[in-house]
Amino acid sequence: MAMKRVAVSAFQALSSSSPSSSSLTRHLHASAGSKKIVGVFYKANDYAKLNPNFVGCAEGALGIRDWLESQGHQYIVTDDKEGPGCELEKHIHDLEVLITTPFHPAYVTAERIKRAKNLKLVLTAGIGSDHVDLNAAAAAGLTVAEVTGSNTVSVAEDELMRILILVRNFIPGHHQVINGDWNVAGIAYRAYDLEGKTVGTVGAGRIGKLLLQRLKPFNCNLLYHDRLKMEPELEKEIGAKFEEDLDAMLPKCDIVVINMPLTDKTRGMFDKEKIAKCKKGVLFVNNARGAIMDTQAVVDACSSGHIAGNLATHQNSIKDQ
Amino acid sequence: MAMKRVAVSAFQALSSSSPSSSSLTRHLHASAGSKKIVGVFYKANDYAKLNPNFVGCAEGALGIRDWLESQGHQYIVTDDKEGPGCELEKHIHDLEVLITTPFHPAYVTAERIKRAKNLKLVLTAGIGSDHVDLNAAAAAGLTVAEVTGSNTVSVAEDELMRILILVRNFIPGHHQVINGDWNVAGIAYRAYDLEGKTVGTVGAGRIGKLLLQRLKPFNCNLLYHDRLKMEPELEKEIGAKFEEDLDAMLPKCDIVVINMPLTDKTRGMFDKEKIAKCKKGVLFVNNARGAIMDTQAVVDACSSGHIAGNLATHQNSIKDQ
Repeated sequence: MAMKRVAVSAFQALSSSSPSSSSLTRHLHASAGSKKIVGVFYKANDYAKLNPNFVGCAEGALGIRDWLESQGHQYIVTDDKEGPGCELEKHIHDLEVLITTPFHPAYVTAERIKRAKNLKLVLTAGIGSDHVDLNAAAAAGLTVAEVTGSNTVSVAEDELMRILILVRNFIPGHHQVINGDWNVAGIAYRAYDLEGKTVGTVGAGRIGKLLLQRLKPFNCNLLYHDRLKMEPELEKEIGAKFEEDLDAMLPKCDIVVINMPLTDKTRGMFDKEKIAKCKKGVLFVNNARGAIMDTQAVVDACSSGHIAGNLATHQNSIKDQ
Repeated sequence: MAMKRVAVSAFQALSSSSPSSSSLTRHLHASAGSKKIVGVFYKANDYAKLNPNFVGCAEGALGIRDWLESQGHQYIVTDDKEGPGCELEKHIHDLEVLITTPFHPAYVTAERIKRAKNLKLVLTAGIGSDHVDLNAAAAAGLTVAEVTGSNTVSVAEDELMRILILVRNFIPGHHQVINGDWNVAGIAYRAYDLEGKTVGTVGAGRIGKLLLQRLKPFNCNLLYHDRLKMEPELEKEIGAKFEEDLDAMLPKCDIVVINMPLTDKTRGMFDKEKIAKCKKGVLFVNNARGAIMDTQAVVDACSSGHIAGNLATHQNSIKDQ
């Protein structure tokens, strides 16, 4: 269970870290003994019973209850996180650690931080801290942590799946099968092999590199745009060509994959003009940072046919069966 | 256009072959000059206009009309292939070459062969000659040809796509998005990464090898069962382990991919007993030879949960955009 490993290691790392130099920081070890830890996860109901390894839900409690309790901590898990009378609110005044996920996040607002006098650590069991008011958390000296790298393989696999689904025109074919239809032309007129296509990743960091490695045996033309060129050895191993100028890369690509972090600089950067630089009929695969694409520009380009397909990433998965 | 290349090369190969030693063979060059060639393909209607490279339909006529006519041949193309008054029947008595595809096949029955006195070559633009009565064709000295290897990359890509779709539980997630639902648990309880899973291919011929090569960077445990062990160098490059005994391989596999030809020996071979040897929750990906799996046994194993997912292959695609 990757989620369990991830939560345990992050919790251990934070618990054992030496006091930071900032006097503003609330240290987890400043209070001795038992800690009050609250986990907020979605309820899986019947699904929880179907898989004992499915721990990223309220019933599974990340699989760390026994371990936390054996260390003398109190561990409260709930999915009830909104409104003044909710379970989470009952513990705001004395919780020390809050663990949550991006799929059913406990929102940590400035107002909640003010009331959470004992809170020291806000932990995302996974990636993404958009649910935390980071400025307020920093001002209050909270540690906000997520588990960097925990989902990179999941996202890279998901991206390659989506590339294949779009290039091979899987979805309408699948719907025909379900509906008992048989109209080969309706699928085949735009079903292609990935082999020989040009795939460009905008961003070749942790995820982009894993994607390129997985694409290599498909015999594509692989391009990447990033601030940094890879080490020559890695570039050669992966077989991808560096494109310093994004605007020069886009017109070459049959498939564009977006693997950049969402920042103030990248938000909405794939607007009407950027999309116009792409080939007509381009396919877009973007990871969970959907906000890098300007929604209206994407909708317009999809209806005009300039973008032939666009699939955002579905990155949640259980690592160990 | 792979289809066009394929048809041209097959036709050229057959036209230029030296007379065979069998006196029963009807030779294409026995009759001099113009040949009457009939192509039977599905009508693509509006879809034909959407892509000029989409030639595997009646409108596209495989993209070989100009070439055939420049060689002095007569080329009739139709989708009308059934019943006594159909277009195909009008040409049965004097056609010399019949070209068709597995997606909208012109059935070449013993009765039709008897009436097709001038027929010499029955050509599948692709793979599969199940639409031809092979015994009757052999007795009449017809050449029945298909284009071996023309779709191996398509099938291997399609198989890897389907493995990812099943392992990552894409389809119910996609349906949630379409329907505006948000039930993460309903997807996540059985969504996995492919990394670390054991994938076994039953058959490692042309397609199985391409699949294994594409799987390599996913860091799976790769197994293959075949009559023959690969050359040690290729086996090392691919990183797959040979399993001589199929019954010993099946219990190890999270995912079983069937890459065997359909023969009298393999028809229905994945029956109740074979499926019972597989892990509970196994995923099956089978290529177009669906008849290798015993349909009732698969249905039963899917409803009991012994098979968690089963997707047959959707192998049609256009190679050159």
